[in-house]
Amino acid sequence: MGDFDEVGDDAVQSVELVRCDGDGAVAGRDLVAREEPLEIQLRGATVAVTMRTPGHDAELVRGFLVTERVVHRAADIAGIRHCSVVTDPAAEENVVNVTLRDGVIVDLDALRRNLFASSSCGVCGKATIENALAVAPPLDDPARFAPDFFRGFADRLLAAQPVFARTGGLHAAALIAPDGALLAVREDIGRHNAVDKVVGWALERDRVPLAGHALVVSGRASFEIVQKALAARIPVVAAVSAPSSLAVDLAGRAGVMLIGFLRGGQFNVYGQRDRLALPR
Amino acid sequence: MGDFDEVGDDAVQSVELVRCDGDGAVAGRDLVAREEPLEIQLRGATVAVTMRTPGHDAELVRGFLVTERVVHRAADIAGIRHCSVVTDPAAEENVVNVTLRDGVIVDLDALRRNLFASSSCGVCGKATIENALAVAPPLDDPARFAPDFFRGFADRLLAAQPVFARTGGLHAAALIAPDGALLAVREDIGRHNAVDKVVGWALERDRVPLAGHALVVSGRASFEIVQKALAARIPVVAAVSAPSSLAVDLAGRAGVMLIGFLRGGQFNVYGQRDRLALPR
Repeated sequence: MGDFDEVGDDAVQSVELVRCDGDGAVAGRDLVAREEPLEIQLRGATVAVTMRTPGHDAELVRGFLVTERVVHRAADIAGIRHCSVVTDPAAEENVVNVTLRDGVIVDLDALRRNLFASSSCGVCGKATIENALAVAPPLDDPARFAPDFFRGFADRLLAAQPVFARTGGLHAAALIAPDGALLAVREDIGRHNAVDKVVGWALERDRVPLAGHALVVSGRASFEIVQKALAARIPVVAAVSAPSSLAVDLAGRAGVMLIGFLRGGQFNVYGQRDRLALPR
Repeated sequence: MGDFDEVGDDAVQSVELVRCDGDGAVAGRDLVAREEPLEIQLRGATVAVTMRTPGHDAELVRGFLVTERVVHRAADIAGIRHCSVVTDPAAEENVVNVTLRDGVIVDLDALRRNLFASSSCGVCGKATIENALAVAPPLDDPARFAPDFFRGFADRLLAAQPVFARTGGLHAAALIAPDGALLAVREDIGRHNAVDKVVGWALERDRVPLAGHALVVSGRASFEIVQKALAARIPVVAAVSAPSSLAVDLAGRAGVMLIGFLRGGQFNVYGQRDRLALPR
């Protein structure tokens, strides 16, 4: 069955607060979603630091390596472990060391350049899309989906968000199998991290490339989310809220069907719209 | 009066879509929020590329320079202009060149390091907060605010979001004067960019440091938002949705009052809670 109920207490933190309403103010405590930096080290070098919600760190790192096109299969990764040589014990959970299989070639400079998103004086949306397609070519996946495939996913995503229910403070991503089964749901303070976590979940189970699968995200669909789906070879991204222009443009070029405003039985379809299989 | 109604058509883009509901599917067009990269060049060197919604680019860059602690007053900036030597004309609006006044010292390596958020094997939430306070010391601002100060801001923010109303796709930030007047509202695909835009608006009018002012943001309050408020010396951040743990912790250490779940007459107060002036 689906894997979406494992969030530990390290995802929340109790804080003091004052509640105000029309009648006055009362001191108390409440749970908030945890936000902590995670440093990813590859062969001893720092390649990224992301602000994330602790929990499922190994999945986050695996998914990050897939969506940044560093690895393509689970066997490319020899090991993932939390750092053991930190000077401050409190930092131990926030540094992850990745060992790659011998023979996996990594262009650290290109990776850092991509993360920094730098370029010479010629940056534009069109060039950004060309760069994304140069790293991960357009999908050649015949998958099509009937409208009924998507109905109810927004509600199921919300129902499977345990930390959100407690704090109201997290994004979620869900991975849907070709038969419509909800495979995994992950939450994070960053929507891109939640996506990396479910992709990492899939990599661990040798399901990448994710042909025929669908990615559902809470909130909005930005360029970055479509780029990550493309890298993991997911043909459909469905967002509960609005897409951005560059997300729509990349989806159209990359062969990704992009769904926005997924609410109950209604939704909008952007990008590769002919993946929608309408009843005749 | 307030400055919140100047968003141009460059903030939206018309795209093709298919609308699905229980009855079937209809092809049409809709407006989505534009997302384009903006490259910021300082003395000819690229210091950052951010995905942003076009419009108010000069404000975005001014605010970015304030919240990254590169400049402290309007006079530090000698000029801001869109790039004129791009190879692709379509990219011209996406590159901004900043000229600083002679004598303004910039540590480009430190700035890039901060943006890349890298560190050696010892990263943790506590160290992240210490770093933020080393760059911008805790506030020494006696400002206090009665609960009535905040009532209605969430509604006023939504009412002043023209692009959101058309696309459902943007975050907003608003700057509130000490007397409660709504000074400026800006929208962007990125919440941090919307904050930089209103801070840049204020820098241009020599209102930075923003003692006694309040910053209101749509959605959630993360560490980054509180860090930007601290850098601009804003004593209160109010978010429509939940705060993160690190946002609460930094606010408490930095002397920032952090309001979450600002809805109608109700809200929660975190961080420097004694800025709340309760009626006796």
